[in-house]
Amino acid sequence: MAARLHDELVVVDGLQYSNWNRKLFEQMRSGGLTAVHATLVYWESARETIAVIGQWLQRFVDHADLIRPVRSAEDILAAKREGRVGVLFGFQNCSPIEDDIGLIEVFRRLDVLVMQLSYNNQSPLATGCYETNDPGITRFGRQAIREMNRVGMIIDMSHSAERSTLEAIEISQRPIVISHANPTWFRDALRNKSDAVLTALARSGGLLGFSTYPFHLKNGPDCTLDEFCTMIARTVDTMGIDQVGLGTDLCLDQPYSVLHWMRNGRWARDTDYGEGSANNAQWPKPLAWLPDASGYPNITQGLAARGFSRDEISKIMGQNWLAFLERSIGPEA
Amino acid sequence: MAARLHDELVVVDGLQYSNWNRKLFEQMRSGGLTAVHATLVYWESARETIAVIGQWLQRFVDHADLIRPVRSAEDILAAKREGRVGVLFGFQNCSPIEDDIGLIEVFRRLDVLVMQLSYNNQSPLATGCYETNDPGITRFGRQAIREMNRVGMIIDMSHSAERSTLEAIEISQRPIVISHANPTWFRDALRNKSDAVLTALARSGGLLGFSTYPFHLKNGPDCTLDEFCTMIARTVDTMGIDQVGLGTDLCLDQPYSVLHWMRNGRWARDTDYGEGSANNAQWPKPLAWLPDASGYPNITQGLAARGFSRDEISKIMGQNWLAFLERSIGPEA
Repeated sequence: MAARLHDELVVVDGLQYSNWNRKLFEQMRSGGLTAVHATLVYWESARETIAVIGQWLQRFVDHADLIRPVRSAEDILAAKREGRVGVLFGFQNCSPIEDDIGLIEVFRRLDVLVMQLSYNNQSPLATGCYETNDPGITRFGRQAIREMNRVGMIIDMSHSAERSTLEAIEISQRPIVISHANPTWFRDALRNKSDAVLTALARSGGLLGFSTYPFHLKNGPDCTLDEFCTMIARTVDTMGIDQVGLGTDLCLDQPYSVLHWMRNGRWARDTDYGEGSANNAQWPKPLAWLPDASGYPNITQGLAARGFSRDEISKIMGQNWLAFLERSIGPEA
Repeated sequence: MAARLHDELVVVDGLQYSNWNRKLFEQMRSGGLTAVHATLVYWESARETIAVIGQWLQRFVDHADLIRPVRSAEDILAAKREGRVGVLFGFQNCSPIEDDIGLIEVFRRLDVLVMQLSYNNQSPLATGCYETNDPGITRFGRQAIREMNRVGMIIDMSHSAERSTLEAIEISQRPIVISHANPTWFRDALRNKSDAVLTALARSGGLLGFSTYPFHLKNGPDCTLDEFCTMIARTVDTMGIDQVGLGTDLCLDQPYSVLHWMRNGRWARDTDYGEGSANNAQWPKPLAWLPDASGYPNITQGLAARGFSRDEISKIMGQNWLAFLERSIGPEA
């Protein structure tokens, strides 16, 4: 029953950074995934970023039977019809624009639909969630938000600090996202979000994507599907059924070197272990119910078991992301 | 009569590199120009090139009443209807792709519609017209031609050497252009083209844009409008009326520093004077009948005086470029 429902859904994963290859694309398709927001870069320069975009354009040729680009919300529906997985581009940091506000539109024209204003650290635009002090959105940040609003690039504050996030919600003329994080009350992690942030996000018409990264979950890798779905239910009670979706943060088949890059970029002389530690540096153990893309149907099933209606499940699993994209990536009204 | 005809035409200038500003855009519009192929770069890197694209996107905002981007052939007709000047992007060299074939599609997606394979010098793809030896299209060059064919980016051999040009015509599955040059018999300059090249270009369905750069003209800056139009007539006799257009090579309001950059980039320790010399290093004196964009109607008038029919004038002044773009910038059939 839930399996059949899952096949009918538009399923959107609001964030992954996997070691993209044919096997993973096949898994995504067989797991009933309609579209995935794929992270292109963390710390990369403008020049490095356009090379990454070139690699993706090659993947769209090499795996045209399995994946397709998402350049509009309509492309997600096309992916569903075609039985392919739509891929939409996003940056987890503002490093690709360097010091040049003009590059926001350049990258938007290359179909980059989402950009985080900061990643863990202070950026020229905003503060990251691991900094001690958060002075809020910067001068460049205010102009960048205005420009992202203008060209239809979604602001993502997943890895940003509290004050910067609240200010971004307020300054932005269009709703923003926190593509992959959970409420702090579920797990008190620097990457999770306070009730103040989530309430402001929901009131402004924004979207939260629930993360399945073990460091963001109660009991870490041992978090049960029921605990995850109960968290969703309680969050829906405060944020509303239209403001939530998925953002699994799956990092499939990635070697430790990639985790080291995500945490340290080129900025750290002393190794930073992020949510881990020197004794626990590695990738966390995968969840039993979402070891890879084959686990998406389990979430549909878990939501059904938790008592969500078909319509509510449809929204959480993808319709909310689809509707958000429809409103957010066109030119400003 | 000719003035009225000029106003009715779609006028396409197949190459300019001017010091773009509002005054020049106004001149272009009042000169009846419908669209211009604007050079973005000569020697610039990928990173520098995306900054230049960002500057153009800003110009489209700042001067939206005068100019518009050309992302398809249809956009040229839209420019005509709107009374704006369409701007289409091109590179005079392959420097923006550096060593990465994937950047061809990246730049194509940024609406770069034309790229020269070499500029005066040997490039990784082809030989330039000032080199002593021309070994022809390189290994990378063959793959780049294939890729440009695939994504619909036009190959331009204006500044390339003879053998490389003949090979590009042969290797390319789609017709190519020489956007701005004249026959060698009109003026024996390294930048002008032999009958062998022009015949092969015409037979393959390619296009020649006639240059008005004084170094490419008989009698240089003193070349008369009648001499220019007579050259067109004689070239049409061999190439056919459908294979020619304009490519003025106007470089309006540019300081000498820009000419030095075009000739020397970052490669020359000993100053290269291009078609000039140490004693004649500066920009050539402008033509009396085309001092700036206000002179386009003179060309229409000159062609009429030379006996071309209305239909022939229409083709030379822009319809041939329009038809060529219609066939060339979509994905490969």
